[in-house]
Amino acid sequence: MKSIVLFGTGNVATHLFNALFEAQNHKIIQVYNHQPGSLAIFQNKISTTSKLDDVVEADIYLLALKDEAIPEIALKLKDKGAILLHTSGATSLSALEPFESRGVLYPLQTFSRNKPVNFNHVPICIEANNSQSLEIVETLAEDLSEKVYHLSSHQRKWMHLAAVFVCNFVNHLYTEGEEICKENNLPFEILQPLIAETASKIENLKPFEAQTGPARRADTGVINSHLNLLQGDRKKIYEILTSSIQNLHGKKL
Amino acid sequence: MKSIVLFGTGNVATHLFNALFEAQNHKIIQVYNHQPGSLAIFQNKISTTSKLDDVVEADIYLLALKDEAIPEIALKLKDKGAILLHTSGATSLSALEPFESRGVLYPLQTFSRNKPVNFNHVPICIEANNSQSLEIVETLAEDLSEKVYHLSSHQRKWMHLAAVFVCNFVNHLYTEGEEICKENNLPFEILQPLIAETASKIENLKPFEAQTGPARRADTGVINSHLNLLQGDRKKIYEILTSSIQNLHGKKL
Repeated sequence: MKSIVLFGTGNVATHLFNALFEAQNHKIIQVYNHQPGSLAIFQNKISTTSKLDDVVEADIYLLALKDEAIPEIALKLKDKGAILLHTSGATSLSALEPFESRGVLYPLQTFSRNKPVNFNHVPICIEANNSQSLEIVETLAEDLSEKVYHLSSHQRKWMHLAAVFVCNFVNHLYTEGEEICKENNLPFEILQPLIAETASKIENLKPFEAQTGPARRADTGVINSHLNLLQGDRKKIYEILTSSIQNLHGKKL
Repeated sequence: MKSIVLFGTGNVATHLFNALFEAQNHKIIQVYNHQPGSLAIFQNKISTTSKLDDVVEADIYLLALKDEAIPEIALKLKDKGAILLHTSGATSLSALEPFESRGVLYPLQTFSRNKPVNFNHVPICIEANNSQSLEIVETLAEDLSEKVYHLSSHQRKWMHLAAVFVCNFVNHLYTEGEEICKENNLPFEILQPLIAETASKIENLKPFEAQTGPARRADTGVINSHLNLLQGDRKKIYEILTSSIQNLHGKKL
């Protein structure tokens, strides 16, 4: 049984805390956050601290913190032999260099506080500074999920960027759809089966092949009538996505 | 039992054909398409024709055709008392004006030829030129689906535009994610649980509230490092979607 100190109390930290509660071979022994108030929800369950000096010795220090806090905490923490891990998609492994053993455990999922996630199906991208460290990270990742992938810092950076496109940007397009419905007294629920089907379609079809719509068909009449309805950011989004679909599909046809 | 002549052999027509095969109170008696070759898949099942003069009398003429073909066929077809319907999101009811009874039955879903769809859950937006026509369209829509909505031509135009955002544009962002994976020797399957969760999240959360990511957090460090990786259309997409998220959430905070 390996012991873990978890750093952070945000969405990723909270979901990791819950998932590690069910893990077979790992156990959280302490939660750290610099703001004492944010520790309240953990206090009944586990030892907590808001002082770095009071962080206990453990096998694994797991930083589920904002990107900018990672190198800062890595510098201030004492290396008493624990392996230091972060969970960030956008931060290089080298941010942890003050520690001799270091690694990355990046769970590729969108976490909201009140939505439970089955961690067992969350892809986890891992990396470490040597084979010994990698074994520790891999064992932890496999204790959390069935889906473990070895990615370099370079690959992880691109994977994080791809995630921004397929998750954050996609959700913003859902928001635009929601706003259009609101402005026209239409219930957003009309769009939900379409959203679900669009996502589920690409489990079996490649997204490139699944593309439909006026841009794909080069239907200038419909495209122009849509552009006439739009202005501002929404019009710019329509223009660039339409032209990008046409460039990509025109090029490859 | 009302009789239907179906016009068209594309994705919408094919899925409607299958759904109407199971309908209780409606029966397709003929399929028309101007290209005889495209009728081959229907020939064993039903009477077909590629000549407008040979179109038989029926209660309902259902045009599941490309937008530009709708007014053209409406003009050439003889009005022998059938109600004339189209299935287009972007075409006004007035395109059917040569007919005395006319209506719209717009199934709001993305249809691919080889992916079966449960029509019972497909939202159907309907409209008609008078209450008698509306009753015919409503009865047909309810025979196909549990989800029937009354939309004006104006509302349907906006609903179709919203569908382009949440389906066609979303699928293009999936394609960008797929391309980024390919370029970096990463399997696209890593992104699939994230895509599924992003879509499923908004069944309970409003998209506006579900927004996460660097743009939402105003994380300039990550945004700049992403922009440094990008060029061309992909960079323009990143820029406009990031700035649109910031404008929308900044404004409303």
